Amino acid sequence: MTRPANRAIRPTDNAARRMARDLLAQARTAALGVLDPDSGAPMVSRVAFGRAPDGTPLSLISDLAAHSRALAADPRCSLLLDGPVERGDPLNHPRITLQARARFVRHGAEGRDALVRHYLAQQPKAKLYIDFADFAFVLFAVEKALLNGGFGKAFVLAPADLTAAQASDA
Amino acid sequence: MTRPANRAIRPTDNAARRMARDLLAQARTAALGVLDPDSGAPMVSRVAFGRAPDGTPLSLISDLAAHSRALAADPRCSLLLDGPVERGDPLNHPRITLQARARFVRHGAEGRDALVRHYLAQQPKAKLYIDFADFAFVLFAVEKALLNGGFGKAFVLAPADLTAAQASDA
Repeated sequence: MTRPANRAIRPTDNAARRMARDLLAQARTAALGVLDPDSGAPMVSRVAFGRAPDGTPLSLISDLAAHSRALAADPRCSLLLDGPVERGDPLNHPRITLQARARFVRHGAEGRDALVRHYLAQQPKAKLYIDFADFAFVLFAVEKALLNGGFGKAFVLAPADLTAAQASDA
Repeated sequence: MTRPANRAIRPTDNAARRMARDLLAQARTAALGVLDPDSGAPMVSRVAFGRAPDGTPLSLISDLAAHSRALAADPRCSLLLDGPVERGDPLNHPRITLQARARFVRHGAEGRDALVRHYLAQQPKAKLYIDFADFAFVLFAVEKALLNGGFGKAFVLAPADLTAAQASDA
């Protein structure tokens, strides 16, 4: 009874691009998937989520966390951003999966100060630990995104679909 | 400035076991991490979450979804279960990561009827699609769990820590 996996994918339209950009703009945490460096198996954990001044998705993570060691070993990762929880079947709520590559921006790295200022505006509570030596920013270079707008509303998006420039033709 | 990844892991106690069991009992969705069969990269998506009569974590997923094809190709996966969202820093809220192997229970398979009855009690809205030919149960055999009870409260748990039998000595 297996049908091709792409049967449910709709052509990307501006409504889908808007929904994707809204999910990125509203998210304050993400479910981060990485590869366990010991086993190669997937490993998912909750991380903070924000964006750099140029809109690049980012997180602030500790070297003490298993996902940090995993990303240092293999930068391939995935981020799931969920929309606000409402009543009804949670599987009928919008969410987006980003496929990305991680790049660390550590203490002393060029551009870190600008990230700190921008990030604290989005995540004010992070001021409690942003200066700890083991905390680093991770920038996520998005390669592909899968938007799920609810049952039967799946879209594959390119990085350009997620940028603000795309908003002007919406 | 890197410290060993296990520096932050506390010895497992009964309070940690209780917290883990509560997270499993309350979750109705999970962030599922799988390996993209084309690239081997991690891929995270939102899935339904419930438990079999014996407590085994499970989901009900469609063959149309990319995670279904991924699990059919490689059963290694990870499930992130978040506790209820409250005010404050979301990274200070309890959540648990399960490392598991997936096994499909398809239409006509032995034991499926009992799963259907038990699952619909947990997820009544699933009656709209549980009988669709492309929907199958996936049972998750847990190999390890990482509980994060908030900043500085990380525990590594074994499968036995998550079972009800463990509750009696709590």
